[in-house]
Amino acid sequence: MLKRWLPSLVWVSDYSQSALISDLMAAIIVTIMLIPQSLAYALLAGLPPEMGLYASILPLVAYALFGTSRTLSVGPVAVVSLMTATTIGSVAQQGTADYATAAIALALISGLILLGLGFLRFGFITNFLSHPVVSGFITASGVLIALSQLRHILGIRAHGEAAPELLMTLGSHISDTNLYTLAVGSLTWLFLFLCRSKLPLVLMRTGLSQSLAGLLSRAAPVLAIMLTIGATLAWDLESKGVAIVGQVPSGLPAFSLPNVTLSLLEQLALPALLISLIGFVESVSVGKTLGAKRRQRINANQELIGLGAANVASAVSGGFPVTGGFSRSVVNFDAGAETQAASLFTAIGIALAALFLTPVLYYLPQATLAATIIVAVTSLIDIRIVREAWRYSRSDFIAVVATIVLTLLLGVEMGVIAGVSVSIGMHLYKTSRPHFAIVGTVPGTEHYRNIDRHDVLTYPNILSLRIDESLYFANASYLEDIIYSQLSEHPEVEHVVLMCPAVNDIDLSALEALEEISNRLGELAISLHLSEVKGPVMDRLRHSHFLERLSGKVYLNHHAAIHELSRV
Amino acid sequence: MLKRWLPSLVWVSDYSQSALISDLMAAIIVTIMLIPQSLAYALLAGLPPEMGLYASILPLVAYALFGTSRTLSVGPVAVVSLMTATTIGSVAQQGTADYATAAIALALISGLILLGLGFLRFGFITNFLSHPVVSGFITASGVLIALSQLRHILGIRAHGEAAPELLMTLGSHISDTNLYTLAVGSLTWLFLFLCRSKLPLVLMRTGLSQSLAGLLSRAAPVLAIMLTIGATLAWDLESKGVAIVGQVPSGLPAFSLPNVTLSLLEQLALPALLISLIGFVESVSVGKTLGAKRRQRINANQELIGLGAANVASAVSGGFPVTGGFSRSVVNFDAGAETQAASLFTAIGIALAALFLTPVLYYLPQATLAATIIVAVTSLIDIRIVREAWRYSRSDFIAVVATIVLTLLLGVEMGVIAGVSVSIGMHLYKTSRPHFAIVGTVPGTEHYRNIDRHDVLTYPNILSLRIDESLYFANASYLEDIIYSQLSEHPEVEHVVLMCPAVNDIDLSALEALEEISNRLGELAISLHLSEVKGPVMDRLRHSHFLERLSGKVYLNHHAAIHELSRV
Repeated sequence: MLKRWLPSLVWVSDYSQSALISDLMAAIIVTIMLIPQSLAYALLAGLPPEMGLYASILPLVAYALFGTSRTLSVGPVAVVSLMTATTIGSVAQQGTADYATAAIALALISGLILLGLGFLRFGFITNFLSHPVVSGFITASGVLIALSQLRHILGIRAHGEAAPELLMTLGSHISDTNLYTLAVGSLTWLFLFLCRSKLPLVLMRTGLSQSLAGLLSRAAPVLAIMLTIGATLAWDLESKGVAIVGQVPSGLPAFSLPNVTLSLLEQLALPALLISLIGFVESVSVGKTLGAKRRQRINANQELIGLGAANVASAVSGGFPVTGGFSRSVVNFDAGAETQAASLFTAIGIALAALFLTPVLYYLPQATLAATIIVAVTSLIDIRIVREAWRYSRSDFIAVVATIVLTLLLGVEMGVIAGVSVSIGMHLYKTSRPHFAIVGTVPGTEHYRNIDRHDVLTYPNILSLRIDESLYFANASYLEDIIYSQLSEHPEVEHVVLMCPAVNDIDLSALEALEEISNRLGELAISLHLSEVKGPVMDRLRHSHFLERLSGKVYLNHHAAIHELSRV
Repeated sequence: MLKRWLPSLVWVSDYSQSALISDLMAAIIVTIMLIPQSLAYALLAGLPPEMGLYASILPLVAYALFGTSRTLSVGPVAVVSLMTATTIGSVAQQGTADYATAAIALALISGLILLGLGFLRFGFITNFLSHPVVSGFITASGVLIALSQLRHILGIRAHGEAAPELLMTLGSHISDTNLYTLAVGSLTWLFLFLCRSKLPLVLMRTGLSQSLAGLLSRAAPVLAIMLTIGATLAWDLESKGVAIVGQVPSGLPAFSLPNVTLSLLEQLALPALLISLIGFVESVSVGKTLGAKRRQRINANQELIGLGAANVASAVSGGFPVTGGFSRSVVNFDAGAETQAASLFTAIGIALAALFLTPVLYYLPQATLAATIIVAVTSLIDIRIVREAWRYSRSDFIAVVATIVLTLLLGVEMGVIAGVSVSIGMHLYKTSRPHFAIVGTVPGTEHYRNIDRHDVLTYPNILSLRIDESLYFANASYLEDIIYSQLSEHPEVEHVVLMCPAVNDIDLSALEALEEISNRLGELAISLHLSEVKGPVMDRLRHSHFLERLSGKVYLNHHAAIHELSRV
């Protein structure tokens, strides 16, 4: 029982020395990678750099205690940071104290929502985020993030939550481009891009193993930071208009609770829910992918608790919304982390950085961080899902394209809402016009198949209709249309038999439609029968008056129905 | 072709003298009934009484030309008038010119929406309004309407769109009750109530036919109007504080188009859509009920055109939103109307009333109209659907109760949105945890049935799982959970066969879950097979790489799978 709520007890109880060494090694590598990443995502969220560090300390500890993945690494991630920027940008002015407070409040509300969902065991609600919607949303977010960072590379102003405004403001200020900033930004970008795409191969040629080569190339952002700090100092780039990070307070975060007013809560509640759900889906999919490689299972409801605790921990220690990140978790995993102890050591590493490293960051150009972000989000942009959906099904294709287009046009918040609505709408639309088939006997057997696909026998006085969908409010009237139009094509019919092996449910609206059909057919002296009604559906029909009022019978199997009715 | 767009051509071409006489008789009776009703619904919408008359002239002509029902009577109805009051109350102050303009604009927008949906053949979208939601919504609206009219009976102020505010403001002003107004209102109510419930029986005892007795008792509101006008004059009730209708301009409405600004359009668009949909659903259900009695069919898409034209006609002639009403259509039908000519004659009747009758209405107490409304809406309140849903299915019960409660608490607009959301959410929730069954062979046959319900044979190395639902994003991860948990209970399994006769669709999210399952089982040296995959689903799977990657096979029928796998 205690282990269910504190999954960390499982690995703590048999922690070995070899695991300790692996976890320590992984922690060192992850810490080096996380310092630039934390600063960069704080910049992306429009927050002071130290908040990025704070969000990478206590949340790691909280997740280590309550989370179920052994290798997931929690902290600020790109998409959630963008959503944070969008949300708090609409309640406060960037750069003000209210802006930072809103970010902290957002983490708190988001954490409480996750905890609440976890205690209620509501993990299933993320099922309503379909794969095309999530993929499309992340791709579009990647594009929006890259666009939003271009201003730091160019050294100009630009703003906006959606692509049209971002592009327009970028375009109207393009003539203000600071060439020194552009040089720093674009060279850093080129450097990081080459390190990411070529360095592992180059290192492998020198005899290094693939995983070691991969890990070493992950240190490129730290190198970029050191080089560009050096360049800024050497050529006094600050005086030439290159924006730098500036004063970063050193020390550990103070514990405090943000002052969440009722009006702030009202404004942040819906965005916090969206951030929680998107963050949760992203994190669980990372956790599952890594877990599968080592046969470790993820418990979705406990993950809600773990991520909720991490966000509350972020809020009380001056951070902003966090979740399990893909790149950081992969590095942690590849570096050999065996348990969440690696995350605990990483938290210590980041805390040391917050204590001693901040003075060094004064001359760090913002363009360096922006280049880091752009290179990182390039991996989020993946339009293969569009091609795959196009090939597989029109409704999935519409859902993914709608999500991408609407997220780009309307911003992340409306984009995810619109994507979910479109995918649910497409599903309902599909099931509102279900596939149906007129069936006949496969000669010499008791099997019944579609007359359009198979060579089967039928009787002129019997219409056998197989409905391939549960009957519910959205398709109740379509069912009436099908039956009446089939009857007008087959005027000699005396019996209609609805074959229901694929009818998994009949709701009240559909039940009333069936009664209506039965009555209408009765007036035309045609009887309505059902066959192969599933057990659970039959149980429910017995709770209504439908069976008493039905003009025909219910047959256990379709052959019995045809056998009996064809002789009458 | 022309007859499709102008259904009236059908009956015009063979119009007979006997139909003319029937239609004229019906028109006289409907006109007498409509005069008080039109005034009352204008009062309910907070609009000047003449607008109720205007809304009962040109809209009838427009529907007569474009509608498909021969006996439907269009005009102001209770629920739509309440929704109109709620909507325009939020953009303008009652009693101002802007308020009336907003009502006219609402009719125009609503009409254009209906026409647009009709031309796009989007009649299906009303399928998403389930029967429990519509019934619950109409019942709750009836309660809200009755509550909103109580102030006119008591002669006090009260306001609010939802039950709590209405009750609170009524309570806080109850001491201002005007006893003369209360006397007029409550006596009128009692008179109308007795006429409605007892008069038909009394008249039938005198030898009148049931339908004639019913029709005569429908004239009671006109009698009530005459009596209370007389009483107001005789006892000078106006000076004693009884609110009267006052000056009603005589004459026909002037044709004009309302000035719809962009900001007004923005505010009215969503409410207009809701009003259109609710009005359409109500009207079509009345039309279908009456049509069924005379074997006349209603075409939903053409009905959108007919009602759209009626609303545009209402807007250009100074009216407010209209739809096909239940009570007026039933009276029209019972009075013997055979074609829409009856509505054309009724329109002439109301036009004559607008020209010559308005001076008489000066002394009509508002309490009389309020009593008329309250008696009329009592028939809308029907909570049998709650009991029926309770007995039949929990999800329908939740949908109907949620709709009623939320409409009462939040008002009509939020109520209908919440009701639709709840019913769609319940449907998704149900299908997100589909019924599944482990199946075995019925001895001596090739049939496979649930091992919990039947005495069947199974093999220890084969897990046969029948999934009773289409596989889509909302249940993709539940499928994984089912399979993994079944495998942990049956560790000796070597083959998992998913029996899919009830799987009507597999979307992209579910396909990826299946690939994931196949891979995971592959690692455990278990193969995944499918059986009885439906034709359309199989066609789609062939468009993906799933079949190549599947560790097992796809069998045409489940018995073939078991026959082959049990021998391996």
